[in-house]
Amino acid sequence: MRYCEIRYFCRMIKKVYKANILYTKERGRFEILENGCVAVDADGRVTDVATDLSSIDCGDAEVVDFGDRLLVPAMNDLHVHAAQYRNQGIAMDLELLPWLQNYTFPEEMKYADTGYAGRMYRRFVRDLWRVGTMRACAFATIHTESTRVLMRLFREAGMGALVGKVGMNRNCSEKLSEPVERMVQGYESLIAEFNDPHGLVRPIVTPRFIPSCTPGMLRACGELAAKYHLPVQSHLSENRDEVALVRELEPESTCYGDAYDRYGLFGQTPTVMAHCVFTESEEMALMKKRGVMVAHCPTSNLNVTTGIAPVRQFLDEGLRVGFGSDISGGHNLSIFQMMVYAIQMSKLHYQRNHARSFLTLSEVFWMATKSAGSFFGRVGSFEPGYEFDALVIDDRGLNFDDYSLPERLERFIYLGDDRHIERRFCRGREIPEP
Amino acid sequence: MRYCEIRYFCRMIKKVYKANILYTKERGRFEILENGCVAVDADGRVTDVATDLSSIDCGDAEVVDFGDRLLVPAMNDLHVHAAQYRNQGIAMDLELLPWLQNYTFPEEMKYADTGYAGRMYRRFVRDLWRVGTMRACAFATIHTESTRVLMRLFREAGMGALVGKVGMNRNCSEKLSEPVERMVQGYESLIAEFNDPHGLVRPIVTPRFIPSCTPGMLRACGELAAKYHLPVQSHLSENRDEVALVRELEPESTCYGDAYDRYGLFGQTPTVMAHCVFTESEEMALMKKRGVMVAHCPTSNLNVTTGIAPVRQFLDEGLRVGFGSDISGGHNLSIFQMMVYAIQMSKLHYQRNHARSFLTLSEVFWMATKSAGSFFGRVGSFEPGYEFDALVIDDRGLNFDDYSLPERLERFIYLGDDRHIERRFCRGREIPEP
Repeated sequence: MRYCEIRYFCRMIKKVYKANILYTKERGRFEILENGCVAVDADGRVTDVATDLSSIDCGDAEVVDFGDRLLVPAMNDLHVHAAQYRNQGIAMDLELLPWLQNYTFPEEMKYADTGYAGRMYRRFVRDLWRVGTMRACAFATIHTESTRVLMRLFREAGMGALVGKVGMNRNCSEKLSEPVERMVQGYESLIAEFNDPHGLVRPIVTPRFIPSCTPGMLRACGELAAKYHLPVQSHLSENRDEVALVRELEPESTCYGDAYDRYGLFGQTPTVMAHCVFTESEEMALMKKRGVMVAHCPTSNLNVTTGIAPVRQFLDEGLRVGFGSDISGGHNLSIFQMMVYAIQMSKLHYQRNHARSFLTLSEVFWMATKSAGSFFGRVGSFEPGYEFDALVIDDRGLNFDDYSLPERLERFIYLGDDRHIERRFCRGREIPEP
Repeated sequence: MRYCEIRYFCRMIKKVYKANILYTKERGRFEILENGCVAVDADGRVTDVATDLSSIDCGDAEVVDFGDRLLVPAMNDLHVHAAQYRNQGIAMDLELLPWLQNYTFPEEMKYADTGYAGRMYRRFVRDLWRVGTMRACAFATIHTESTRVLMRLFREAGMGALVGKVGMNRNCSEKLSEPVERMVQGYESLIAEFNDPHGLVRPIVTPRFIPSCTPGMLRACGELAAKYHLPVQSHLSENRDEVALVRELEPESTCYGDAYDRYGLFGQTPTVMAHCVFTESEEMALMKKRGVMVAHCPTSNLNVTTGIAPVRQFLDEGLRVGFGSDISGGHNLSIFQMMVYAIQMSKLHYQRNHARSFLTLSEVFWMATKSAGSFFGRVGSFEPGYEFDALVIDDRGLNFDDYSLPERLERFIYLGDDRHIERRFCRGREIPEP
């Protein structure tokens, strides 16, 4: 644990929020505090969470009463291509290859222009805010200056983001290929600006995926991560053909994950891998050993015709799992909708295999909050010591009958949208519309 | 064809609407009229659709210009349980049986109270309006007077609906069982009030499904349909256990559909059957022969853990197919979202079987409009003679770059919601919020 427990007790409570509080300390069980309260210190960390105000030593803290509203941890998006935002929700009836060639790569090329990048990234950050996502692991493009634009927009907004300038130098158009040295220089220039290890916005080392990166590129990525202790993100075992190609490209590796591992890109620093649809037992064992996080992207896996990731098995094996919207393979930016799809996909997956059960609401909620949040530090819960990332949900339009608190939360997750998210907090600070 | 062609030419054009018009005459191809116009007569029928105003003899018709907005046919929902509206989006991580016993049946019992029914049905009709559904095949409950409340609400709203008082008298709680004679009397009393064969709101004969109905009940339903020439709706081959149970209950039938057929409930009058997940070749052949419509309910099939209906095969075999939201097995009332899910499900279904291709956007759009609309008459297209059921889509919030018209429609379908539906028309009349 990076922060010393004693700190919470020394710190003055700055604000106490009252509301109907729902969160998940453990996978598979909601903590529900009807008219509960949560106390937050000047650093934006939770100091206490309780069923009533009298059990908290508030001192002269300001008490903010949200009445009958719901207060839940904010969402974390572990895999999203910021530079594909323009293509969200188009060409959704194509298969992977024509979709990449005709839509994705031509779009990413436009980000050589920082003006275009600024226009698009501004919308992207605002819409992320809208859907209640306060922390994201985002792919930018190969372009250093456009990536810087995105990082600055996140910093101005006050939202948390690990932003990846993309490394790629093979099997792609020349316009999306960057020499290794220039990639390293670009990273170092971003690191120089975003150099606070406790800052909300930081670079994340981002080799696109093994087929797009020469061994030299992968080695340089691993060295960057080690030298600056930066986290790593990439794609893993998304598609059968891709898995076969990686086997050809990296014949000495025992599995796709092992190929990353050999370059120091698989848990040597905190690592998140998107998809893992075709991850089998050996890869799972390595992920567990290295603490590699899975970014489960159910809508993308459907849209891009990959399949269903074995999420129940990941959880049973003790792997870390969160959600990614994966715009624009995914069409929906809301992590609440990822919860819905994850339950649905697991029902389909385990329908024919009753040895494992499908995911429940409290499990997917835990995945989206405490589990995914752990990639950003102590984020995603209201336990003391956690950074206060929170959403205030005004569900009056949905709550027209005698619904219980868990039912109200479920209805918001299934039926609600950004209209029902009234206020957003990241690290204790209320975040206005960017 | 019930209406004589000559009628359209004699009729005076009443209004001409200008907009970007998108619709599907044929499965698999959009008709796209940039700044096109559609002329509608006093009966609410399209008389002409053209790329520009000069080619229409407008006379002194009022021209309404929707500018850069999209004009598309309104949505048709072929399967929705109006009386389960309160339960939309709750208990979504249960399997079928506990969900029925603990949530669905207790809820339907409340509809013995017409006051409760009025409160809930009013919300239901308004929300159907919100999501752009102008015609629906709705299940009510066994209760005649509550069913009448729902029918009156639809009539007041000016929306089209076939509303089913539910027939059920076995394998259910006594409170949801009604003797055959009382069922028939109830129907006749509804028919007496809603007796216009061209009216927008009519009764539809609704045996819940074979396991809930004795042979006497099924026979009476078939007789009612024949006597009053009423359409029929029910459930078909949703679940493996259900299919096996029907085989036991109706041992002389060659398939589930054949069991309905023997009671005159399978195409003797216009018939729509929900789900058809486990429909095989014999049942398909009978459905084709009888013109039975499939109500494909992809979200419900996921939520209730049934599986994926073979929709591509239905289309290849020439079956009629449309969509059902199937609230509250389905969680989403929007037929636009059914299109999204249908494409996604077909990708998953045909991923392992490349002999058949997955559904495209123009195909699901056609299913939702012209194909489903045919259950209500000449509905779902802008061809001359069709009733003008339409939505005006204001997609400015989504259309921030140089998108083509098909891309704008796709983005609205994937990302849009009721906020983007600006105006709604049913049979030529603009429908205000009910």
